[in-house]
Amino acid sequence: MSSKKLENMIVKMVKEAKKASQSMALVKTSAKNTVLRKMAKALVANTDYLIRENKKDLKAGAAKGLSSALVDRLTLNEKRVKGMARCLLDTVAIKDPVGGIIETIKRPNGLVIKKVRAPMGVVGIIYESRPNVTSDCVGLCLKSGNSVILKGGKEAFYSNKAIYSILRKALKGSKIPPEAVQFVSTTDRAAVNILLQQDEYVDLIIPRGGEGLIRFVADNTRIPVVKHYKGICHTYVAKDADLKIAQAVCFNAKVQRPGVCNAMETMLVHKNCAARFLPKMIKVFQEAGVEIRGCPGTRCIVKKGVKAATLKDWSEEYLDMILSVKVVNSLKEAIDHINTYGSRHSDAIITRDKKQADQFFKSVDSACLYVNTSTRFTDGFEFGFGAEVGISTDKLHARGPMALEGLTTYKYEIHGKGQIRQ
Amino acid sequence: MSSKKLENMIVKMVKEAKKASQSMALVKTSAKNTVLRKMAKALVANTDYLIRENKKDLKAGAAKGLSSALVDRLTLNEKRVKGMARCLLDTVAIKDPVGGIIETIKRPNGLVIKKVRAPMGVVGIIYESRPNVTSDCVGLCLKSGNSVILKGGKEAFYSNKAIYSILRKALKGSKIPPEAVQFVSTTDRAAVNILLQQDEYVDLIIPRGGEGLIRFVADNTRIPVVKHYKGICHTYVAKDADLKIAQAVCFNAKVQRPGVCNAMETMLVHKNCAARFLPKMIKVFQEAGVEIRGCPGTRCIVKKGVKAATLKDWSEEYLDMILSVKVVNSLKEAIDHINTYGSRHSDAIITRDKKQADQFFKSVDSACLYVNTSTRFTDGFEFGFGAEVGISTDKLHARGPMALEGLTTYKYEIHGKGQIRQ
Repeated sequence: MSSKKLENMIVKMVKEAKKASQSMALVKTSAKNTVLRKMAKALVANTDYLIRENKKDLKAGAAKGLSSALVDRLTLNEKRVKGMARCLLDTVAIKDPVGGIIETIKRPNGLVIKKVRAPMGVVGIIYESRPNVTSDCVGLCLKSGNSVILKGGKEAFYSNKAIYSILRKALKGSKIPPEAVQFVSTTDRAAVNILLQQDEYVDLIIPRGGEGLIRFVADNTRIPVVKHYKGICHTYVAKDADLKIAQAVCFNAKVQRPGVCNAMETMLVHKNCAARFLPKMIKVFQEAGVEIRGCPGTRCIVKKGVKAATLKDWSEEYLDMILSVKVVNSLKEAIDHINTYGSRHSDAIITRDKKQADQFFKSVDSACLYVNTSTRFTDGFEFGFGAEVGISTDKLHARGPMALEGLTTYKYEIHGKGQIRQ
Repeated sequence: MSSKKLENMIVKMVKEAKKASQSMALVKTSAKNTVLRKMAKALVANTDYLIRENKKDLKAGAAKGLSSALVDRLTLNEKRVKGMARCLLDTVAIKDPVGGIIETIKRPNGLVIKKVRAPMGVVGIIYESRPNVTSDCVGLCLKSGNSVILKGGKEAFYSNKAIYSILRKALKGSKIPPEAVQFVSTTDRAAVNILLQQDEYVDLIIPRGGEGLIRFVADNTRIPVVKHYKGICHTYVAKDADLKIAQAVCFNAKVQRPGVCNAMETMLVHKNCAARFLPKMIKVFQEAGVEIRGCPGTRCIVKKGVKAATLKDWSEEYLDMILSVKVVNSLKEAIDHINTYGSRHSDAIITRDKKQADQFFKSVDSACLYVNTSTRFTDGFEFGFGAEVGISTDKLHARGPMALEGLTTYKYEIHGKGQIRQ
């Protein structure tokens, strides 16, 4: 496709989506839920077609020598199609945020000011190789009253297109205008750049994928982006920590699922409890297969099998069975370490002292702060939101796990009886 | 100053401010209020000094031939110094948002998740010629627990520097670290570009000034910016409007203060009431000195003194005694007009019909929507917020009038008793 033709295609798409978003704001919850249920049914009914189209992607991937991890993410089978349908039905069950009244202000002059939750408008999703993102995001965006523009990775092109075509067909005869769901039907990378320029029509971009993709999106658009680049999460074992709790929580934070953004990457230990805590803790980690990289203080206490941590280790997101360990002299030093090397995602303190926990909460500049529990809980489902669009380490708009509310904005509705300003 | 030296100066400044912001998060409300009161007192005590420094700016301005409007904005006198002090005392009276609990979630596993308001961190203010912005913003940023970096316009350099030096001196011996207030002490425009690159240290930029400044800031930074470019506000007189209310409200929205962003620029009138409403309304406007630019439908009803509106008029922010008028066939046409030509700031409908008002509220994509009252009420003080940092037409974070809460973010504080994720 010529670059002019590509641009025309995308501009047409975002304009249609914007127009559709005005109707979307009026669609009732029950009508949205009906559509989501119909979509879930249609996906399952078309399982064979989806698996057939997915095979095209898998074949192209094999020819290109994709890694087995990537092939796994890309693969659709009966179970995964059912999972996609299930996610749509889960979204039906989540409370519709649109129209919710956040605050009502009554003014002395009789004006009634309502702060009301409203859809964002048009949400763009730019994602990589997981085809389920297509249906998950369509469900979440429609439920929150938004139009959605999908731009998936080229590895999953046929799978995404097939899912999209089924979802869009399900809109027929519904209260949701079909133009509310748009799919950028090209593998041309230039399409992303053109989409990122549509700040007049697109209200929010959510990139789903690796740090490279997220940085590219954030660096190349004026459209607001909700994102986190990475998760370098810490657990600080304070001098008065319950060491049994410390051991259980640290083990969970590192080992339960090391490849995710809320797993612990660095453990900080106060010098006063290091000699009691570290030998047993490190042994447990090593038995589980965790490689330990320690500061000089750590290696002075435990010599066996502990590599020397370099400066680089403190800002590394391993996403693997590796842990850096540092002995610190004070709570203040722990806080400074986290604010210097952390990623403002999730950090924990293990302490019996409410005052120390409070100082940790106030001074660590992260989205989620924990006392006596595991950073692994940073998750929309674990927080009880019923869904997760992503996790944000930004400070404006959504921070931490982001669900349906994060896909909405608010407006002020002011009710008068002819009042004028003096 | 060499560009390297300038960069070093600004990087040092933002690093200091970031460090100070960690202490700021711990400062109690009473300590913040004490500082603000001390600042107010110091400003008044130094009135002579401030007026003397201000004269340097006025002299330079006269030599450059500044417009009388600009000279007026720039001028400090006893009354205005008292006004600055008053604004600081008003800020004392506003509720401190920091530490406020937005929501508490109790999970089945016993975790208690608190969503708590927290300072943003470091706020940068980039502003033009009004010296009072210096003290107003220092007060608002400190009260909300933030460090603040001030970069004022060169026309007010000596005035701003004098105000800053008094405020910073007032921090001596207080609980607020002096590094929490920083002033970019140069008139070199390059300083703005360097400041806009400090996304690692600055959490939020608020530009205060004309559309040119705001666009420059938004286009040249990755730091989040809260802003509105302009206000093209509409009032739509629906077919069933109370025409007495319509006349009073439209007159107020246009004439009470035409030079501000929440004044009406375009009046839309349903065809069914246009013949009854327009002749009298336009006469009243014309008697007040308002120039009317009408669509063909308007000019068919009122011929005398109504200029023909061009396409350009629908997207013009006059900020003056000029009004464009359009007769529309339906509520839908009014909504489409506003969404096409408006600025997403403030728009009103005059109607007796709750259903029409509701459709207007849901379908018009603006920050503030009014029924039967004037768009002039879009204002932090009129909303009862006690202050106004600015008005935002963005959809993320703060929308509409923005006060102290807009200078905060939130964090999740999760309290556990050793829970781990299964």
